[in-house]
Amino acid sequence: MKPSRITVASLAISLAGFTTAQAQDPLPSWNDGPNKQAIVDFVKATTEQGGAKFVPPAERVATFDQDGTLWVEHPVYSQLMYCLDRVGPLVKAKPELAKVEPFNTVISGDRAAIAKLPAEDLMKIAAATLSGMTTEEFQAQVKPWLTEAKDPRWKRPYTELTYLPMQEVLKYLRANGYRTYIVTGGGQDFVRMYSDATYGIPIEQVVGTAGATKYGYDKEGKPTLTKEPKLTLNDNNAGKPEGIHLMIGRRPNAAFGNSTGDQQMLEYTKAGDGARLAMIVLHDDADREYAYGPATGLPDTKVGTFTQALYDEAKKDGWNVISMKKDWKRIFAFEQ
Amino acid sequence: MKPSRITVASLAISLAGFTTAQAQDPLPSWNDGPNKQAIVDFVKATTEQGGAKFVPPAERVATFDQDGTLWVEHPVYSQLMYCLDRVGPLVKAKPELAKVEPFNTVISGDRAAIAKLPAEDLMKIAAATLSGMTTEEFQAQVKPWLTEAKDPRWKRPYTELTYLPMQEVLKYLRANGYRTYIVTGGGQDFVRMYSDATYGIPIEQVVGTAGATKYGYDKEGKPTLTKEPKLTLNDNNAGKPEGIHLMIGRRPNAAFGNSTGDQQMLEYTKAGDGARLAMIVLHDDADREYAYGPATGLPDTKVGTFTQALYDEAKKDGWNVISMKKDWKRIFAFEQ
Repeated sequence: MKPSRITVASLAISLAGFTTAQAQDPLPSWNDGPNKQAIVDFVKATTEQGGAKFVPPAERVATFDQDGTLWVEHPVYSQLMYCLDRVGPLVKAKPELAKVEPFNTVISGDRAAIAKLPAEDLMKIAAATLSGMTTEEFQAQVKPWLTEAKDPRWKRPYTELTYLPMQEVLKYLRANGYRTYIVTGGGQDFVRMYSDATYGIPIEQVVGTAGATKYGYDKEGKPTLTKEPKLTLNDNNAGKPEGIHLMIGRRPNAAFGNSTGDQQMLEYTKAGDGARLAMIVLHDDADREYAYGPATGLPDTKVGTFTQALYDEAKKDGWNVISMKKDWKRIFAFEQ
Repeated sequence: MKPSRITVASLAISLAGFTTAQAQDPLPSWNDGPNKQAIVDFVKATTEQGGAKFVPPAERVATFDQDGTLWVEHPVYSQLMYCLDRVGPLVKAKPELAKVEPFNTVISGDRAAIAKLPAEDLMKIAAATLSGMTTEEFQAQVKPWLTEAKDPRWKRPYTELTYLPMQEVLKYLRANGYRTYIVTGGGQDFVRMYSDATYGIPIEQVVGTAGATKYGYDKEGKPTLTKEPKLTLNDNNAGKPEGIHLMIGRRPNAAFGNSTGDQQMLEYTKAGDGARLAMIVLHDDADREYAYGPATGLPDTKVGTFTQALYDEAKKDGWNVISMKKDWKRIFAFEQ
């Protein structure tokens, strides 16, 4: 075989990592409309060499809230389910807790009583199950849970309940030189356990609520970090832009959220120069997922508060409000 | 011209980003010896596909202390010089400070008195000059200083006083798939102002002592982050592995330091499985740079304490002690 010039060129191009994927629809699970168009327009504007809104690859940052934005958060955050599931092993290790509230309620298995536990009791459970162990012990505890625990509605591991349209946005942005970060109110160490396998987001690109760790030595003198019940970063609300500054150091070019906890991240992103994309997911699809929050006209829930005030700010400040019902052709990858 | 199979292959290889540089000496400013060899052996062991100590590219992390490890820290940290230089503009903006210690001593210009200021006064100066402004205002203050301020001995910007042998290590590790991080006791926001231009280290790979920021809105309603005189992360001593866990989330494969502030980072790195490299720079070259610290047999100084106990731990724990005098053929790029 005598390779022609064209063969050489195409071999070189494919080795250099280019594909023809750009020519295909990068967002097949999105219905055509202004929101899909806004994503495509943003990517074009910021990556077009020589364009007025071009952003150098090293500066391309997109941040994503997790619960309710990348995957299902309703009716209960999966990390809270994890904490409740950890109470059993915790009480086994520390039997004295069996008689102490709120641990005795949790091990009673009384679902109605558990659902009524007030926020401060849930905080106690979170602190007790997310601290006191080394970082390696914590990882060993979370790992099996992620494959064993199942969402009660879809009977699947939580990591399968990610939104396919958002997975496409993540890939589309990365294919265009963006670094994609999770910026979550959830626990940073917890989310890092699945971010790479679930979203292709490496652990150092997870910014989350982070507890302090304490350096010390185990019995063999090996250095360890022990998780402490003390917050270093509360990555919610104003904590999101503060965490972004701490961990990334740049104002994002694009940000995605779904609740009042994302308000400041979206404002901060939108206030930057050049092309900025701020998108907020409205859970208005009771059939395929859930519908909740005042902006849907439905009662608010404990999770993912999308208030009317937030909706009004989105409209005024030029954020894109994503309707799950209208914008998303398909919600989950496992759906036919 | 009819391209042969070999031409096609070599074109493809060069387009894919490979070069023949690997065949050359990656560390030309290092004298041959066990320390240079340790770096080369570590890279070979961790990157050899199929080898027992192979580390997947996504997990390759190397951390570097900055002051005294990547550049000159003696006789005064450059960031402290920055803070002292900022006192003038600060007093101009707030004239009431002109009569208050330690600001009046600094604006007096009395070098002997300034050199005698106790640590708590220096902390006051640091807090006053590194907080109270928005992150953008801070960047605008630091930027001109970096080009204008000069080290008194070499009469060059501080950013030129980096150690050429360490610059070679940074490049060599990156060429082998390592992400290189600065892990510094210096200010994270300050070091981020020059990390990329000076070391090729992007700002999100700078872990440093970090103050809190406060989210708010300026007069035009634009969201801002204001630097506060309150620490989020004290990235020294045990704070270094804690900061590494927070910001990177992985135990480094290799770490480089030069003082007691790096002890825990080096221990933590060395305690991991597989091949680990812990290196510590001994400043024993009074002619070409400086010689200081008890490990040199010379009196200790305010900066970069390399104690005898640290030296003993290095020997016992298998860290490599780099002698600037013996190991480094050339110290600065500007030297002939």
